[in-house]
Amino acid sequence: MIKLQYARMLEDGLDGGIDGARGLSRTRLAELTRRFAAVQSEVRSRRAEGEYGFYDLVDQGAAVKEITAFAEGVGQANDHVLVLGIGGSALGAKAMLNALRKPAWNELDDEAREFYPRLTVLENVDPTSVAAALRRIDPRRVLVNVVSKSGGTAETMAQYLVVRSWLEDALGAAASRHFVFTTDPVRGALRELAARDGIATLDVPPDVGGRYSVLSPVGLLPAALVGVDIGALLAGARRAVERAEADDLLRNPAALYAALLWAADTWHGGRIHVLMPYSDRLREFAEWFRQLWAESLGKQHDRRGGEVNTGPTPVGAVGATDQHSQVQLFMEGPYDKAITFVTLDEFGEDVAIPQRPDLPADLAYLPGHTLGGLLRAEYEATAAALARMGRMNMTLRLPSLTAETFGELVMFFQIATGYAGAWYGIDPFDQPGVELGKRLTFAAMGRPGYAADRVAAAPAGDEA
Amino acid sequence: MIKLQYARMLEDGLDGGIDGARGLSRTRLAELTRRFAAVQSEVRSRRAEGEYGFYDLVDQGAAVKEITAFAEGVGQANDHVLVLGIGGSALGAKAMLNALRKPAWNELDDEAREFYPRLTVLENVDPTSVAAALRRIDPRRVLVNVVSKSGGTAETMAQYLVVRSWLEDALGAAASRHFVFTTDPVRGALRELAARDGIATLDVPPDVGGRYSVLSPVGLLPAALVGVDIGALLAGARRAVERAEADDLLRNPAALYAALLWAADTWHGGRIHVLMPYSDRLREFAEWFRQLWAESLGKQHDRRGGEVNTGPTPVGAVGATDQHSQVQLFMEGPYDKAITFVTLDEFGEDVAIPQRPDLPADLAYLPGHTLGGLLRAEYEATAAALARMGRMNMTLRLPSLTAETFGELVMFFQIATGYAGAWYGIDPFDQPGVELGKRLTFAAMGRPGYAADRVAAAPAGDEA
Repeated sequence: MIKLQYARMLEDGLDGGIDGARGLSRTRLAELTRRFAAVQSEVRSRRAEGEYGFYDLVDQGAAVKEITAFAEGVGQANDHVLVLGIGGSALGAKAMLNALRKPAWNELDDEAREFYPRLTVLENVDPTSVAAALRRIDPRRVLVNVVSKSGGTAETMAQYLVVRSWLEDALGAAASRHFVFTTDPVRGALRELAARDGIATLDVPPDVGGRYSVLSPVGLLPAALVGVDIGALLAGARRAVERAEADDLLRNPAALYAALLWAADTWHGGRIHVLMPYSDRLREFAEWFRQLWAESLGKQHDRRGGEVNTGPTPVGAVGATDQHSQVQLFMEGPYDKAITFVTLDEFGEDVAIPQRPDLPADLAYLPGHTLGGLLRAEYEATAAALARMGRMNMTLRLPSLTAETFGELVMFFQIATGYAGAWYGIDPFDQPGVELGKRLTFAAMGRPGYAADRVAAAPAGDEA
Repeated sequence: MIKLQYARMLEDGLDGGIDGARGLSRTRLAELTRRFAAVQSEVRSRRAEGEYGFYDLVDQGAAVKEITAFAEGVGQANDHVLVLGIGGSALGAKAMLNALRKPAWNELDDEAREFYPRLTVLENVDPTSVAAALRRIDPRRVLVNVVSKSGGTAETMAQYLVVRSWLEDALGAAASRHFVFTTDPVRGALRELAARDGIATLDVPPDVGGRYSVLSPVGLLPAALVGVDIGALLAGARRAVERAEADDLLRNPAALYAALLWAADTWHGGRIHVLMPYSDRLREFAEWFRQLWAESLGKQHDRRGGEVNTGPTPVGAVGATDQHSQVQLFMEGPYDKAITFVTLDEFGEDVAIPQRPDLPADLAYLPGHTLGGLLRAEYEATAAALARMGRMNMTLRLPSLTAETFGELVMFFQIATGYAGAWYGIDPFDQPGVELGKRLTFAAMGRPGYAADRVAAAPAGDEA
């Protein structure tokens, strides 16, 4: 079970906090708990109206069976899974792969299956990466999962056309059998292509937006293909949903997390929200969080249409690595950040730092510890040092990183984002600000109907 | 040659700019050019005093020959290069590898040498990643490059002890021949170990700090080992140095870049500096930039010792991918950002989007373009859309991504950081804020002399 430790978000947990008015006062914390009744009630009624569809992803018994069976079949028949997607269609799969994948290829695995396929996620249209990936992959042994909720995302469809042609060159008509589409159950170009060419499909639930879809078939299929226990993922997610039913803010960790970050932003200038796991396996999770937080909360208008131009800026970091990159700024820069650490009590395997004869005296303190012990000491030192400098920080503590705790973590953040939308007074499920860029792109690509959006050239001059 | 296009940093290049006072006025730009004389003069005198040692990295004729010869010899004898380092000892090598590496292993290469070694950079002490890397690598065919300027970085030395023991288990006394240390010419534990065990070494120039060291042997050795033309890297860097001699701000792109970002932060609330290359190959470069900018400019005190708590927050992004993640926030969120795009005129190779029979009408606009063309259209659309929303942005335009332009880009940013230090009035070469965390870590690890720094446990309670 995830624990949220938030003493150092409060002024009495920070040096210089009380005089310097840094961190939340106990009075403010009490105010948040009082105001939470209205937030919880708003979220409940919006859930009842179907706006928070991602909560229901914990009940997918039939889909789990279907995906598991599919993955067993094609997973054994292919060495490589190639996911084509972008944004919410790619970040979740990447995060899950990074956190949970089984050893592939020549690495040892003590389970019954000898290996799981490699997985490559193509999430851009950079020709260099696409060409390199297609040179590396054997078309006879690949399963291509095309993921687009709308079924018409420009980047993903361009990738599809390239990969389709590459597969047909190698396999002819058999190419269709190497695809599986994850898309809207009814609408869109992918759905049309699937019906015509007899391509296998999985549905994205219509009431689940792209950045909330990692626990839907969007993320579950790639996860199952590389050997992740997707039943355990959803069991963990269910625990996060259950804990979010609490009406006492202090017993509802996802809601409390949202409230603390909203308060840090609104009352204490903490407009930059850093997520810093002390685990390489959560590096991509921090990228996933960046999309969830930025695209959900960065909004021009509030729910009533008033102009607010609001939204905290999420920043990803990894400990201990970024102690040698970002932490100088976190320690000494402006008081504009709130930092969330994610720690693991157990790493699964640890590595002893061995003793050696004639070790230079400067290094004598290292042997006898483990790498995991060093990493934990660095986290504790960094969190304490930030508190001494009056910098707000808190910790999400996981017992270990498994499919179950990862599923809980994902759902924790999705629920927290939904609550944060209510605190900020904005719609956390839309993304109106990306439409203009899409229109201008279509115009530049000559798509019919967009001629009026032709971009004028950038102003001349002003070049060095 | 890199071009800096900055029309959209100016109010007359932004919609809503003039009325809304968004972006710099021409008057402010003129003020920057006037004040630049003092900045240029300060940088010149500090350079003369040896503070800006990284400028001199463009003159390393002897080191280039030595490194090239060494790399030719051991590069042919090993399949794998393992770099142990953290922060400035790792980020530059990763960025260079990501941008410039030759195809490895089974990929085709039209050059004379058949393959270059794989390169793995271990930049953390997460036991999971260290153990996985050592399972994957054949100790008989690896060259281990340990990089630490001080020669005593805790994480790197812990890695070294683990890897040393792993190599000795496999190779016995021959293990020493598989190491090369990059460290201070005189001081530190690595230097002591090298002398005793007869290990090959390269010097980090004492007047070049870790985050400015990628063009020193720190980055040049890994680059040469994977086939990068390090002479061309330095030739590109030399061009950046030459252009930075200009006394007219508008003809000195690195200085102008620093001035524009300082002005955006100081006068227009643009405290978050986003670097968004439209190239997968520059993803790690954005990470390198984050360290350079954050650790150099995030400072509690100015040069006179006054408390300022200053420093912009750097954020990395990649186009077009992050259009589906961060751009919603950039478009609609607070007016607290200035965005720098990096674009390539040529990708080296491009991929046509093929025509197909019976294409759904929604997709008919794609064939006939290339992936590179789509990527460029997306950049132009995004930059224009941001300008319509009154959001400051500018572009660094590279003709293509080669060793030469990459070297120029690296030196451009290092020089810009040096100038920014002068504008902000802080020392861009120290990192006093990380010392406290180091002391607390040493105390937790039981290092003699640090008992007074034992961290008290985090406050009890306040957990959900």
